[in-house]
Amino acid sequence: METLESILADFKARKITEKAAAKKIAELGTIDLGHTKIDASRRARTGAGEVIYGAGKTAAQVLEIAKAIASRGGAVFATRLKKDALALLEKNFEGGRANEIARTFALGGEKKRGCKKFVAIVSAGTSDMPVCEEARETLEFFGERAECFYDCGVAGLHRLLEKIGRISEASVVIAVAGMEGALASVVAGLVKAPVIAVPTSVGYGASFGGIAALLAMMNSCANGVSVVNIDNGFGAAYCAHAICRAK
Amino acid sequence: METLESILADFKARKITEKAAAKKIAELGTIDLGHTKIDASRRARTGAGEVIYGAGKTAAQVLEIAKAIASRGGAVFATRLKKDALALLEKNFEGGRANEIARTFALGGEKKRGCKKFVAIVSAGTSDMPVCEEARETLEFFGERAECFYDCGVAGLHRLLEKIGRISEASVVIAVAGMEGALASVVAGLVKAPVIAVPTSVGYGASFGGIAALLAMMNSCANGVSVVNIDNGFGAAYCAHAICRAK
Amino acid sequence: METLESILADFKARKITEKAAAKKIAELGTIDLGHTKIDASRRARTGAGEVIYGAGKTAAQVLEIAKAIASRGGAVFATRLKKDALALLEKNFEGGRANEIARTFALGGEKKRGCKKFVAIVSAGTSDMPVCEEARETLEFFGERAECFYDCGVAGLHRLLEKIGRISEASVVIAVAGMEGALASVVAGLVKAPVIAVPTSVGYGASFGGIAALLAMMNSCANGVSVVNIDNGFGAAYCAHAICRAK
Amino acid sequence: METLESILADFKARKITEKAAAKKIAELGTIDLGHTKIDASRRARTGAGEVIYGAGKTAAQVLEIAKAIASRGGAVFATRLKKDALALLEKNFEGGRANEIARTFALGGEKKRGCKKFVAIVSAGTSDMPVCEEARETLEFFGERAECFYDCGVAGLHRLLEKIGRISEASVVIAVAGMEGALASVVAGLVKAPVIAVPTSVGYGASFGGIAALLAMMNSCANGVSVVNIDNGFGAAYCAHAICRAK
Amino acid sequence: METLESILADFKARKITEKAAAKKIAELGTIDLGHTKIDASRRARTGAGEVIYGAGKTAAQVLEIAKAIASRGGAVFATRLKKDALALLEKNFEGGRANEIARTFALGGEKKRGCKKFVAIVSAGTSDMPVCEEARETLEFFGERAECFYDCGVAGLHRLLEKIGRISEASVVIAVAGMEGALASVVAGLVKAPVIAVPTSVGYGASFGGIAALLAMMNSCANGVSVVNIDNGFGAAYCAHAICRAK
Amino acid sequence: METLESILADFKARKITEKAAAKKIAELGTIDLGHTKIDASRRARTGAGEVIYGAGKTAAQVLEIAKAIASRGGAVFATRLKKDALALLEKNFEGGRANEIARTFALGGEKKRGCKKFVAIVSAGTSDMPVCEEARETLEFFGERAECFYDCGVAGLHRLLEKIGRISEASVVIAVAGMEGALASVVAGLVKAPVIAVPTSVGYGASFGGIAALLAMMNSCANGVSVVNIDNGFGAAYCAHAICRAK
Amino acid sequence: METLESILADFKARKITEKAAAKKIAELGTIDLGHTKIDASRRARTGAGEVIYGAGKTAAQVLEIAKAIASRGGAVFATRLKKDALALLEKNFEGGRANEIARTFALGGEKKRGCKKFVAIVSAGTSDMPVCEEARETLEFFGERAECFYDCGVAGLHRLLEKIGRISEASVVIAVAGMEGALASVVAGLVKAPVIAVPTSVGYGASFGGIAALLAMMNSCANGVSVVNIDNGFGAAYCAHAICRAK
Amino acid sequence: METLESILADFKARKITEKAAAKKIAELGTIDLGHTKIDASRRARTGAGEVIYGAGKTAAQVLEIAKAIASRGGAVFATRLKKDALALLEKNFEGGRANEIARTFALGGEKKRGCKKFVAIVSAGTSDMPVCEEARETLEFFGERAECFYDCGVAGLHRLLEKIGRISEASVVIAVAGMEGALASVVAGLVKAPVIAVPTSVGYGASFGGIAALLAMMNSCANGVSVVNIDNGFGAAYCAHAICRAK
Repeated sequence: METLESILADFKARKITEKAAAKKIAELGTIDLGHTKIDASRRARTGAGEVIYGAGKTAAQVLEIAKAIASRGGAVFATRLKKDALALLEKNFEGGRANEIARTFALGGEKKRGCKKFVAIVSAGTSDMPVCEEARETLEFFGERAECFYDCGVAGLHRLLEKIGRISEASVVIAVAGMEGALASVVAGLVKAPVIAVPTSVGYGASFGGIAALLAMMNSCANGVSVVNIDNGFGAAYCAHAICRAK
Repeated sequence: METLESILADFKARKITEKAAAKKIAELGTIDLGHTKIDASRRARTGAGEVIYGAGKTAAQVLEIAKAIASRGGAVFATRLKKDALALLEKNFEGGRANEIARTFALGGEKKRGCKKFVAIVSAGTSDMPVCEEARETLEFFGERAECFYDCGVAGLHRLLEKIGRISEASVVIAVAGMEGALASVVAGLVKAPVIAVPTSVGYGASFGGIAALLAMMNSCANGVSVVNIDNGFGAAYCAHAICRAK
Repeated sequence: METLESILADFKARKITEKAAAKKIAELGTIDLGHTKIDASRRARTGAGEVIYGAGKTAAQVLEIAKAIASRGGAVFATRLKKDALALLEKNFEGGRANEIARTFALGGEKKRGCKKFVAIVSAGTSDMPVCEEARETLEFFGERAECFYDCGVAGLHRLLEKIGRISEASVVIAVAGMEGALASVVAGLVKAPVIAVPTSVGYGASFGGIAALLAMMNSCANGVSVVNIDNGFGAAYCAHAICRAK
Repeated sequence: METLESILADFKARKITEKAAAKKIAELGTIDLGHTKIDASRRARTGAGEVIYGAGKTAAQVLEIAKAIASRGGAVFATRLKKDALALLEKNFEGGRANEIARTFALGGEKKRGCKKFVAIVSAGTSDMPVCEEARETLEFFGERAECFYDCGVAGLHRLLEKIGRISEASVVIAVAGMEGALASVVAGLVKAPVIAVPTSVGYGASFGGIAALLAMMNSCANGVSVVNIDNGFGAAYCAHAICRAK
Repeated sequence: METLESILADFKARKITEKAAAKKIAELGTIDLGHTKIDASRRARTGAGEVIYGAGKTAAQVLEIAKAIASRGGAVFATRLKKDALALLEKNFEGGRANEIARTFALGGEKKRGCKKFVAIVSAGTSDMPVCEEARETLEFFGERAECFYDCGVAGLHRLLEKIGRISEASVVIAVAGMEGALASVVAGLVKAPVIAVPTSVGYGASFGGIAALLAMMNSCANGVSVVNIDNGFGAAYCAHAICRAK
Repeated sequence: METLESILADFKARKITEKAAAKKIAELGTIDLGHTKIDASRRARTGAGEVIYGAGKTAAQVLEIAKAIASRGGAVFATRLKKDALALLEKNFEGGRANEIARTFALGGEKKRGCKKFVAIVSAGTSDMPVCEEARETLEFFGERAECFYDCGVAGLHRLLEKIGRISEASVVIAVAGMEGALASVVAGLVKAPVIAVPTSVGYGASFGGIAALLAMMNSCANGVSVVNIDNGFGAAYCAHAICRAK
Repeated sequence: METLESILADFKARKITEKAAAKKIAELGTIDLGHTKIDASRRARTGAGEVIYGAGKTAAQVLEIAKAIASRGGAVFATRLKKDALALLEKNFEGGRANEIARTFALGGEKKRGCKKFVAIVSAGTSDMPVCEEARETLEFFGERAECFYDCGVAGLHRLLEKIGRISEASVVIAVAGMEGALASVVAGLVKAPVIAVPTSVGYGASFGGIAALLAMMNSCANGVSVVNIDNGFGAAYCAHAICRAK
Repeated sequence: METLESILADFKARKITEKAAAKKIAELGTIDLGHTKIDASRRARTGAGEVIYGAGKTAAQVLEIAKAIASRGGAVFATRLKKDALALLEKNFEGGRANEIARTFALGGEKKRGCKKFVAIVSAGTSDMPVCEEARETLEFFGERAECFYDCGVAGLHRLLEKIGRISEASVVIAVAGMEGALASVVAGLVKAPVIAVPTSVGYGASFGGIAALLAMMNSCANGVSVVNIDNGFGAAYCAHAICRAK
C-alpha cells in the first residue's frame, strides 16, 4: 500500500509529477462512499482505526461502511447502534461480537495490550450500566483488559470502600455516575491512577440530563480527574486506551 | 401588650367598634420606620423574631432598625453586615457579639435550647468558613448548640471519616461545600440525622458561583438531604433551629 | 446476624485472621445481585432501609430486588414504578399496598412513629397530586402520620388561610407547588415548623419543567425553607421523617 | 410647527415638490444631535414624549439632549442618571425635581391625569425602594397619582393584608419584588386591577440578579399579571400610565 | 347566599358563635371536589370567575368541575383542553362554544363590555394562530370585543403598516410573536395603547421554545410593553380585560 | 400590475383620491388567504420572492399558498415539508423538484446566477447532510451554483486539506457542522471568501442540540465568519445568495 | 521574499534538501516574538493581514507586535486597545490614526476598494456607537467605504424609514443593536443586500449582556441575516470586507 | 513516623487499646491548623502531596500552611497566589521558585520523572499563557518534563502544523484554548497521545468566560480528548502527571 513517505520518495525521484503527487496524497487517506469518507489513514496517524458512530445512520449505511473497512482488512467497531443495525451486522459478519446493552458490535480488534494491568470501570448505580458496557466493549476492542465495579454510589460508601483495594491497582480508572456525580471525586481522592469521569444522564428534575453530574465532575475537589461528554462511555474508554498506549 | 386575641375579645365584648378592631389588628404586627416595616408579630407567629438582613441597607438604617427592636425589648440579630454597620452596632450596643468573619452582630437571643444534642456544621474546605460562621452565630442566637467540623472535603475522605462518629451524634447536620458539593451526599449516606446542604460560591470556572454545588446537592443520591440557597449559612441554621424546635 | 461490632470483637479475640475480618466487613453491608448491590446495612447506618427506585429498572429487576429484601425479612418500598412493575409486585406480594397515582408499592414498614404529631402536605394545585401522594406513601411506610391539604395555591389565598390553623399544628410541613412556587414562602411565613419545599414540573413555557418553582423556593424571603429536587415527593417525605426521628 | 398632515396637504396643493415633501417628512420627526436622534414626534405618535435614558451617556450628552428638548418647549424626564449628570441637570434647570434614590430628573410634565384613581406601587422589601421610586417619579411626570406601599413581602403576610383594602382601590397595581417574587401572585389573587410585576435584582446566590423573580412572575398562578424587565421601574410606570390613558 | 358581610353581621348580632363564624367564613369561598377546590369567591374578589385550566386534568375531572360551576349558576370557561375533554364538554352542555384551534370551551360569560373600543390581537405569523384564538375566545368570554390582525411579521413591514391605522384605535394591543419577537417593539413604537406581548414557541434551533422571543420582549426598546408567559394567550387576554375593566 | 410608483403617479395626477391611494398601497403587497398573508411585494423589495416555511402548516395550507403564488406567475419554493405536504406538492405541480433529504420542493426559480463562480458547502460529517441539501436546493432555486464537500470534519484534517484547493475558489463558503463546530474556524483560516457557519443539532449530551457548535462558531478565532441559526441551511444559502447578488 | 512556491521550486530543482525545505516552509509563515507568533502569511492565505487584538496584551506587547509588522512593511491595525496602548502606538508611529471611541489604531491599510458602493452601518441607539466605530475603522483599514446611520432603533420607526432609501443602496448592511435587537429583522425585510447583525451588550436585566439581542438576531424572521459575536464590530466589518472582496 | 500498618500491627499485638488505635488512625492523616486540615497522608494515598490552593486564603494563611508542610520535610507547591502571598513565600523560603505569570511558588518537588518523554503544552493564543505556565510549573514540580508550543491557534493552521511533528512525540498533550476551543479537536486528530483539553476564559461576548470552549471540547469530534475545568492549568498538569506515573 502506498504511504505518504513512498509518494514523496517517488516525487523526489521524479517518478511522478508534482500534480500527480498532490492527487495521490489527497486520495491516500480516504475511502469515499458518497455519504461518508472513511478516514483510512487514521490508524497510522492516531494509532486507532476509525470507529463507526451508529447514531443518525441507517442500518444500510452502517453495513456499507463496515464492509468497506472489513474488505480492506480493517477491524470493525460500531457504537450507538439501533436494533436493526445491530441485527444486520450480526447477520453479515460471522464471528463478530454484538452487545445489546452497550449497543456495540466488534469484529477483530487489537491483539496486544497497552496496559500491563487493567482499566477499572467504577459506576454509581445500576442504571449506569449501558455506559459502562460501551466503555468495556471499547476497551476490549482496543486490546485493553477491563474490570467492572458496578453500583458503588457514595450513598453507601462501604460498597466503594470494599472494592477500593482492587480498584487502586488499575492503570486507569473510569468513574461513571449520574445524579450528583460525587463518585468521581471520592474515587480520585483514593487512587493514584488518572481518573476519567463520565457523567451519565441518569437522574431527573434538576439533573438536566447529566449536566449536574458533568458540572460536579468538572469542579472536582480531588486532583487527577478529567471529564468526557455525558454518556460517552466510548470516549472515556478511548482516552483510557490512549493513556495505556502512551507508555 | 395587645394581642390578636385580646383585640377580638374586646370586640366581642363590644368594647371597641368593628372599625376600631380592624385598625388595631392592622397595626398590631408592624413597627413602621418609613423605609422598613418591622414584623413585630413574627416571633409570635413563626417562633423567631425578625432578623436584620444587612445587605443593601446603610449602616444608619441598620442601626435604626436595631434600636427599634431593642427598645421594645427584643433581641437583635443582624447578618451580611458591611464593616461600617458592624462597627456602628458594636459602638451603640454594649454587650453585643460582633463576628467579622461571619459578618454578624448579636445582642441577646434565645435562652432555652431546642435540641438536647447539637447541630453539626461540616465543611469541605477552609474557604467555606464565613458561611459556617454565619450558621454558627445564627444557631447560638436561637439558643442551639453548634459544633464545627471544618475542612472535611471528600478528596481526603479520612478527614471526614475520623470525625463521622461525633457528627453522627448530632440532631441535625449542616453540610457546607462549594466546588462539586459531594460532601453532602457522602455525609448523608453515613448519618441518621436530617442533612441541610449549603452550596457555597467557592470555586471557579464551571462552578458558576455555586451552581455546580447547588445542582449536585439537589440531585444527591443519598436520602435525607434538603438544600438552601448558595452561601446561605443563616438559612441553613434557621432550618436546623426550626427542626430542633419542632419536637 | 453478624455486625461490624461482632466481627471486630472476633478479630480482637483472635478468632478470625486480619484478612478474614476485612473480607467479612466488606461483605457485611451488601447483597450482590449482579446488576445491583443492595445496601443491606443502610438501615443500621442511616436509620432507614434501602428503597427501590423503579425508574430505569425493568419489572423483573424490581421484583428480584424486592424479593431479595423481603426474603431477609426487610420491609419493601418502591417508587417511580412503571405500570408493569407495579402489577408484578402486587401479584407477587400479598398484603402489599400499591398506589397508582403515587406509583409506589409498600410491604410492611415502620411501626412506631417518629413524630408525636403529623406531617402536613400542602399543595398548590390539583396537578401536584402525584407528588403529594408519593410523599404521603413514603411517610406512611416510615411510620409517620400525614395529612394532606390539596389545592391551596396563593391565587386564592383564603383556601390556604382557612386551613392554616390545622397546618400550623404539624411537626413538619411539606409544601408542594409548580408554576411560580410562591406557596412555600407564604406557608413558611405563617408556621413555626420547618418547611420542606418540593418544586413540581407543573407549568409550561418559562416554567422550564419546574426550574422556576425551584429557584423561587431557593430564594424564599421567608425563613425555614429548604428545598428538594423537582417532583421529589419521596425525598421531601424522607427528610420529614428524618426530622421527626431526630428528636 | 409643521406636521405630517400639513406637509401632505402642501404636497397635494402642489406647494412643494414630491422630493421636498419626502425630505420634510424625514426631518419632521427627528432632532439630530450627531450622537443622538431625538424622536421629536414620539409624543404625537405614542402619546408620551421621549425620555432620556441616562445609562451609557456622559453628563454632557444628557445635558445637551435635555436642552434640545426643553428649548423646543418639551418637558424633560431623565432616568438612570449618574451622580454627575444629576448634578449637572439640577444646576442647569431651575425648578426641576431631582430624586437621588430614583436617580431621575424631571422638569415639567403632564398636567391632566389619566386615571381618576391612583396607581398603587407595592414592594416586598426595603431594598426594592430605588425601583419603586423610579416608578413613582415616572408616574408623576406623566400626570398620574401614585401611592406607595413599601415592605409588604409575603414572609409577613399581615403587612400586605393590612394594606390590601387601599391597594384594591387602585386603577393599576405595580408589584415590585426580588428574591422569589411571590408578592405579584399574592397581590394579583386579591385585586381586580391589572398587575404589572417588576422583578428586582435584590437577592443573592441562585436569584441570578433577578431571574428567579422574573421567572416566578412569568409563571404566576394568579391571573392578570404581566411582567417588565428586571429593575425596570420606569417601564412598569409607563405601562401603568398607558393603561390609565387607555380609557 | 351567605357572604362575608352577612356572616360577620350575624356574629356581631350574636346569632352565631365565634367558632361557627370562623367555620362559615372558611367554607364560604370554596367548593371542594376532593381533587380540586373551586375558588367560588374569586369573582367577588378579583372580578372574574375561576377558569378551568384543562392541562393535566382528565376529561372527567374537567366535566365535573364545569358541572359544579354551572350548577351554581356560574359561566364556564375552559382552556388547554385535550380533544376528549372538548368533546365531552360539547356533549354535556348545550349552547356552549367549542374552539378546536384555541382548544377552549365557553358557556355563558360576561354581558357588558369593559372597553368602549376593542382589543387588537396582532400576530407575526400563521403559526401563532392557536395562541391568538385562545386570546380571542378569552376576551369574548369576559365580554370584550376583539379584532385580529394576523401575519403581520416585521419581515414584511408593510403588512403591519397597512393595518396600523386600525390597530392604533384599540384600547389595548396584544402582540403575539415567536422567533425573534420583534413585532412587540415595532407595534409599541407606533401606538398609544398599552401593549401586552405574548412570546410563542414558534421557531426552532436557538429560539428555545419561545425564550428568544420572551427575552426580546422583556428588553423592548419601545415603552409600554409588558410580557406574559410563552404561548399564554389566555393570560394576555385576561390582562387586557383587567385593563378594560380598570376604568 | 400596479406598483407603488404607478399609484403615487396616479395620485399626483389626481386620478385617484388620497384615500384610494392609501388603500391601493396597503393592498399592493399582500395576497390574503385568511390564515396567511403572502408578501407579494417581497421580491421587488428584497430581491427574492417569499418562500413557504412548511413547519407548523398543514399539507393543505402549504398547497393553497403554493397555488396562490404559482397562479400569479411566481416561482414556488417550500422548505421543512412534512412527507404528506411534499407528496401533495409533487402531485399538484408537474415539473417541480422534490428533495426528500432536504425536505424541499421547488418549481421554477431564478435564471441568472449572481455569482460567477460557485458557493461551496462544506460539512463535517455524514449526519449533517439534510442541512447541506436544504442549502444546496435553496441556492439552486435562487440561481446559484453549489458544490458540496461532505464529511470533512477536523478529526481527519487531511479530508479537508485535500479539498481546500477547490473550496478556496468559491465566492462564498457555507460551513456546516455539529458537535464542537470547529470546522468553521479551520476553513475560515484557509480561504479568502466570506464564511457562513451553520451549526447543526448533530451530537449528544453537552452539545445541547447545536448550542455548543453555535457558541463555537460565534467565538471563532478566525476572521470572516458569521453565523445563522441551528440547522438553518436555508438561511445560510439565502445569505450566500444575497452576497452573490450584492455585486 | 521567499514564498511557498519558490521553496517548492528550489526543492524540485534540488537546490535544497527535503529537510531544509520542510524547515523553510515551517518558518515561512511566522514571525516568532516568544509570546506571540505573528501569522505573516495570513494576507497571502486569506487576503488580509493579521490584526492585533489588544485585549489581554500589555501596551509593550502591542507595540512590539506592531513594530514587527511595520518593520516588514505591513500595515498595522489594532483593536480593543487600552488607553495606554493607544497612547504608546500614537507616540511611536507617525501618521497613524487613533480612534478613542473605537479603541483602534491604524497605520496604512488597503488602497483599492472591494465594493463599488459602500457598507452601511446602521445602529439602534447612541450607546452602540463604540461598536459602530470599531466597524467603521476596520472597513476603512481594509479599503472599504463606510456610511453610518446612527440611532435608528425601531421604537421610532420613522428614524429608520427616513434613511432606508440610502441604506438600501449599500453593498452590505451591518446592523448594530442591543436590547431586543429587532433592528436587524426590520432592516433585512427592507433591503436586498446581505445583512450582518452585531448584537451589543447595551441593555440591562434580562438582556444578559447581549444574549437577548444575539438570540433575536439568530432567530430573525427576515431572510439574509447572519450574526457575529456580541460587540464584535471588527468581525462584522471583516465579514463585510470579505463579501466586498468576494466579487 | 507512624503509619496505618504500624498502628494496626501494634493493635493486633495488643500494645495499644482499640480506642487508642482509633485515635491514632484518626490523627494520622491530618495536620490541623485550625482553619485548615493538611492532608498529610495524601502522598501515600494518591501519590502526590497536598498542593496549596491560594485563592481565598490570606498571605499569612498560605505561609502558615507552607511552613507546616516544609517543617515535616514535604515539598511545597502553591497555586493561584495573590501578589502579597507570592512575595511572602519568596521572602520566607530560600531556593524556592516563584513564577509571576503562573502565580505559583515551588520549593523542592519530585526527583524522578514519570514519563520517559515529555508533556506537550499547546496553546491557541498569547493570552492563554498564564494557564500554560501554571501547567508547566506543576509538571516540573511533579518531576515531568514539559515543552511549550504557544500561539498555535487554528486560524493560522500552519503554525500548528509546523510544530505537530514534535508535538506528536509527546507522552501526553495538554491543549489550552479559549474562544471556540477548536485547537483540542484538531490536535487530537493528529496525535496518538491522550489529549487533556483546558478551556480558558479568553474571549468575550458569547464565550461566557470559557463555557463556549468547554462545550466545544466536551463535544470534540476527535477521539482521545478529556477535559478539565476552565483555566485549570494545574488540573491538566496533574492529570498528565498521573498518566505518566500510571505506567
